[in-house]
Amino acid sequence: MSVTTPALLPSFLSGSWTNPSDAAQDGVAELRDASTGAVVGLMPKASADLASAFEYARTAGRDSLGDLTFHERALRLKALAQHLTANKDRLYELSAKTGATRIDSMVDVDGGIGVLFTMASKGRRELPNATVIPDGPTEVLSKDGSFIGEHVYSRIPGVAVQINAFNFPVWGMLEKLAPAFLAGVPTIAKPATPSSYLAVECVKIMDESGLLPEGSLQIVAGGARDILEHIDYRDMVSFTGSAGTAAKLRTEALARNARFTSEADSLNAAILGRDVEEGSAEFSAFVRAVVTEMTVKAGQKCTAIRRVIVPHAMVEPVQKAVAARIAEKTVVGDPRTEGTTMGALVSEDQLRDVREAVSRLEAAGGRNVLDPLPVPEGGAFMSPVLLVWEDAEATELHEVEAFGPVTSVLGYETDDDAVRLAARGAGSLVATVCTADPKTAARLTLGIAGHHGRVHILNAETARSSTGHGSPVPHLVHGGPGRAGGGEELGGIRSVKHHMQRSAIQGSPNMLTAVTGQWHRGAERRISGEPEFGGSPELEHPFRKSLAELEIGDAFVSALRTVRREDIQAFAEETGDTFYAHTNEEAAAANPFFPGIVAHGYLLVSWAAGLFVSPEPGPVLANYGLENLRFITPVAAGDSIRVELTAKRITPRETDEYGEVAWDALLVNQDGETVATYDVLTLVAKTR
Amino acid sequence: MSVTTPALLPSFLSGSWTNPSDAAQDGVAELRDASTGAVVGLMPKASADLASAFEYARTAGRDSLGDLTFHERALRLKALAQHLTANKDRLYELSAKTGATRIDSMVDVDGGIGVLFTMASKGRRELPNATVIPDGPTEVLSKDGSFIGEHVYSRIPGVAVQINAFNFPVWGMLEKLAPAFLAGVPTIAKPATPSSYLAVECVKIMDESGLLPEGSLQIVAGGARDILEHIDYRDMVSFTGSAGTAAKLRTEALARNARFTSEADSLNAAILGRDVEEGSAEFSAFVRAVVTEMTVKAGQKCTAIRRVIVPHAMVEPVQKAVAARIAEKTVVGDPRTEGTTMGALVSEDQLRDVREAVSRLEAAGGRNVLDPLPVPEGGAFMSPVLLVWEDAEATELHEVEAFGPVTSVLGYETDDDAVRLAARGAGSLVATVCTADPKTAARLTLGIAGHHGRVHILNAETARSSTGHGSPVPHLVHGGPGRAGGGEELGGIRSVKHHMQRSAIQGSPNMLTAVTGQWHRGAERRISGEPEFGGSPELEHPFRKSLAELEIGDAFVSALRTVRREDIQAFAEETGDTFYAHTNEEAAAANPFFPGIVAHGYLLVSWAAGLFVSPEPGPVLANYGLENLRFITPVAAGDSIRVELTAKRITPRETDEYGEVAWDALLVNQDGETVATYDVLTLVAKTR
Repeated sequence: MSVTTPALLPSFLSGSWTNPSDAAQDGVAELRDASTGAVVGLMPKASADLASAFEYARTAGRDSLGDLTFHERALRLKALAQHLTANKDRLYELSAKTGATRIDSMVDVDGGIGVLFTMASKGRRELPNATVIPDGPTEVLSKDGSFIGEHVYSRIPGVAVQINAFNFPVWGMLEKLAPAFLAGVPTIAKPATPSSYLAVECVKIMDESGLLPEGSLQIVAGGARDILEHIDYRDMVSFTGSAGTAAKLRTEALARNARFTSEADSLNAAILGRDVEEGSAEFSAFVRAVVTEMTVKAGQKCTAIRRVIVPHAMVEPVQKAVAARIAEKTVVGDPRTEGTTMGALVSEDQLRDVREAVSRLEAAGGRNVLDPLPVPEGGAFMSPVLLVWEDAEATELHEVEAFGPVTSVLGYETDDDAVRLAARGAGSLVATVCTADPKTAARLTLGIAGHHGRVHILNAETARSSTGHGSPVPHLVHGGPGRAGGGEELGGIRSVKHHMQRSAIQGSPNMLTAVTGQWHRGAERRISGEPEFGGSPELEHPFRKSLAELEIGDAFVSALRTVRREDIQAFAEETGDTFYAHTNEEAAAANPFFPGIVAHGYLLVSWAAGLFVSPEPGPVLANYGLENLRFITPVAAGDSIRVELTAKRITPRETDEYGEVAWDALLVNQDGETVATYDVLTLVAKTR
Repeated sequence: MSVTTPALLPSFLSGSWTNPSDAAQDGVAELRDASTGAVVGLMPKASADLASAFEYARTAGRDSLGDLTFHERALRLKALAQHLTANKDRLYELSAKTGATRIDSMVDVDGGIGVLFTMASKGRRELPNATVIPDGPTEVLSKDGSFIGEHVYSRIPGVAVQINAFNFPVWGMLEKLAPAFLAGVPTIAKPATPSSYLAVECVKIMDESGLLPEGSLQIVAGGARDILEHIDYRDMVSFTGSAGTAAKLRTEALARNARFTSEADSLNAAILGRDVEEGSAEFSAFVRAVVTEMTVKAGQKCTAIRRVIVPHAMVEPVQKAVAARIAEKTVVGDPRTEGTTMGALVSEDQLRDVREAVSRLEAAGGRNVLDPLPVPEGGAFMSPVLLVWEDAEATELHEVEAFGPVTSVLGYETDDDAVRLAARGAGSLVATVCTADPKTAARLTLGIAGHHGRVHILNAETARSSTGHGSPVPHLVHGGPGRAGGGEELGGIRSVKHHMQRSAIQGSPNMLTAVTGQWHRGAERRISGEPEFGGSPELEHPFRKSLAELEIGDAFVSALRTVRREDIQAFAEETGDTFYAHTNEEAAAANPFFPGIVAHGYLLVSWAAGLFVSPEPGPVLANYGLENLRFITPVAAGDSIRVELTAKRITPRETDEYGEVAWDALLVNQDGETVATYDVLTLVAKTR
């Protein structure tokens, strides 16, 4: 042990780095290096002033984040990620003290920073540059269209309380922070004691960057037993940890009508398909996955494989291959020692818990088939354990979790058996299905999907490119039903929406336009163009307006243009689209949808562009796409079409000199019937 | 009271109509006519055999529903709605006994049947004809595209336990049944005792139709105290009723790791905007809404307006107008009596509860300003109560709910005050915002949205067409945060998804294609067309295949076609699309995205159609639309394009001789760069 006095870990609350005033009185918890037992820090046991911290979040935090749009928040996240990257050595150094190898630390530190980058990118690409998110299409609720409905996500009007697990102090904090931050909800984070110094360092780096809006992130290092006493129905509690603690916190949070989500470790399965033979690419990939999940982070992962479900005949080959690979590849030791491939458990306490769980599993019929590896003296080191079970139905096998380098192997007969056994985990975060046969993959995957938050299909095609059984990715949801906590984290923008309230908004098109900031059909327009159809000659064509001038509801209506038989014929010849509906009167008339020869849909939208375009150089830079095109009424020779184009959605970019404008396009014929509807997507310059 | 012995209400469990064997022993509860007090039925207090009922749902119910696709289930719902419509007189007759007027019964009975029709229609229009729902776009997780991810909803592998409220026994049951049924989850319904005979009759009619798949719907009329003892993590409990019972059931359900959603009555607000003047259309609409919500169903609605929040100066005008309208329009009485506009509360117990709540509100400062209306002797009749408050901050005003024809009026100063006062309901189902000013509507609506499940904006434009403050519609979500239960029902297909598990599926394009039944880019194809680009001359063009023959992955690749400057010029002339990027070399080159003059996007997709089409009459009937079109690489004169078209999603219709086929379209240039991507939507005949 060191002779210098270790530092008292500070909290970042109400805008400053602080310790409870009565810290000395209530004593401290010693935080120890997992490999050496040296004290690396002291955590005060006394409670911080959480009442003030909540008030600070509800005022300063709420306002500072609320003033930013989704895109602005996303850019902040990106800048924070860059700043953390530049300072990540500080995190790696502390991470080693938690028992984490270099690779373990990469998963935690770079993985956590990666979540910020991905969420920042998704926030800008997938969200409007605004503060509310429309959800789903408009619903017309009255015959005349004067009463409509739409759904809107707005941020919850409270605080995100995030209670994190010890195993990934950086990733676990950042994967919860990113969606709350993007949603506009201030965070109060509570790290798990054993690795809290690493989480605190991460917040320090972010604070130093000056990029954190005031009150958007606070961290409590110290007693926080009463943290949930400060919450109410406006808040959201996100927990990662054991199922027992999850249940306790859930009861407390829900009694206060707060939102609650949890992600608890579960007895995740890996199923080997009946088609897989020893020595095949799938067999090797499966064995590699099992060993990786046992040894990365010394098996201290909520997602680790705990049950290896293989055809009866494969129990022995799998167990031998796993044993051989571990014997060959695994070196247990201090992560700072050259050659170490598996570090220590996070603490002596954790080691004791895992050994106890292994004893219970052994007593219930699990037989360890691995030879013990050499482990250093002192520290929380443990040799991997592979339990083989004669009785695949044993209750403990499906219920007792050893949160360390421990997994079980059991045999199955039919695919239905495999599904049933996997489901006996009573809700899991993830399962791997390893097979070369797509039909087997579909059967097993759909069989277990309802019991799992994620299913990872492994075969030769993905053996090299898979991100792995145990690694949640920010793009996909993380969380599972039942024992896994019943929550859902990540999943890209889905996680942002979990921090928002979805509300149905009903009213007139004008009112919904005002509320959502998107133009709704039926709402007022300022129409330029053809006077016969309501255009005002004084108004400028909206294509002449820059992003700074354009407003939703700015519109253009064209004159009618008549489609002649020879136009259809010429279009068919020039494009090569000689589909019989455009070229053969008799065959076209026999088609259930057409009166006879009709104009090409592509002719109609091409002409529409000709009708609505303002051709001279101007702020409209490009038409980059089209959405939701539907052809409603066919157009025959002699019919005429005209177009109405209305600015519907305006999304200025933060970092470019232009932005996106979506235009509502409506094609009608001479009788006013709708010919087609779609959205035209354009890029428009911010200034003329 | 009648001298004939009233019938013992049967349960429909495990496939038959039954009573607990020990019904006599445990006694019965008397169900009474709300207006006359006559006993209309007896409910056994003893528990039914729920263990068998759950087992039956988990086996017969699960299989019978699981064998059907979403479209098949939707058609069943539609047929059930038609059968209920044909038999609705039976429901109306019983409904009157609950104290409901003809209009109240319409809301319950026709409203409930309407949910079935809407959900049936949405199920067929918005869901695939399959058993799983893909969610969101594919996420590419490896650089080479060999490892991808996607989300899929599959039904929860358990039972939907639905515990309903007394006020809308038909609507309340059917709005919960419809989404569970569509999702493929068998239902066990528990009606509230006072109106249980009506719910039982509704199930009887459905059972008689022969349309209910075996085990898909069971109803427990009788003791069911232990109902949640049978659930586990696979199940979902949906509750409607008081906040107190909701909390109790939630704790029990969550302790068993089941899903839980609740919809509890809340102290819903109606806010009158500061712009609204007495005598305006908005003022009248507001007063009408307040009176409607007080008197429909005698105010026994979770969504009823309990707090009327108006500018200080409008307290008196509003209270007077409400009083006048009630005096003029409201006739309290037996709903079977001609002229009655407001019926009885459901029971004497309910009447006692409401009177007690009114006393508490009066003691806290609420002053009833309505003259009592004449009410008949006997029965659970009550005259409306309008409480006016000097102190808008009184705690009871925002916390004590009188679940009858009772509402409070309070004054506010600023918009922020109005928002804050509405939020003091601590989470509500719905609020009305009444204003003629879009900016006020936006400010108030967005201010309160995070505290509400629905916001109803009322103005002159919607005074006639609005479906009303108090009426949930199947298209929009119903439920609110906090006190309102924190749940979400309805909202169209959203409600179906609440009965499903969202799982992330990771694997190769081939594997995800097998699991989801939709072709993913990178998965195997059977390619016809141009040999130079992988087409096999032996394979038929996929446009020649009927829906019966076509498989996802059937593809066609075209040859290259060169775009000449004169093609662009001709297209510009013929379509009229003379945008400078297609006509003016210098201006085009000055555009940040183009090398100089480029081909029109519409030219490219028109040519693509010419390249991929198989023109002769055949199974492909029409191109009805296009989705997700994005132009990626510009095409200049001298460049060539070719197209790859692959059957991506096949949706046969149940009731037509054709179905939808979505084709993945990929345009590439002579260098293999992606020019554009989109989905082509076609209708294809089932047979040649």
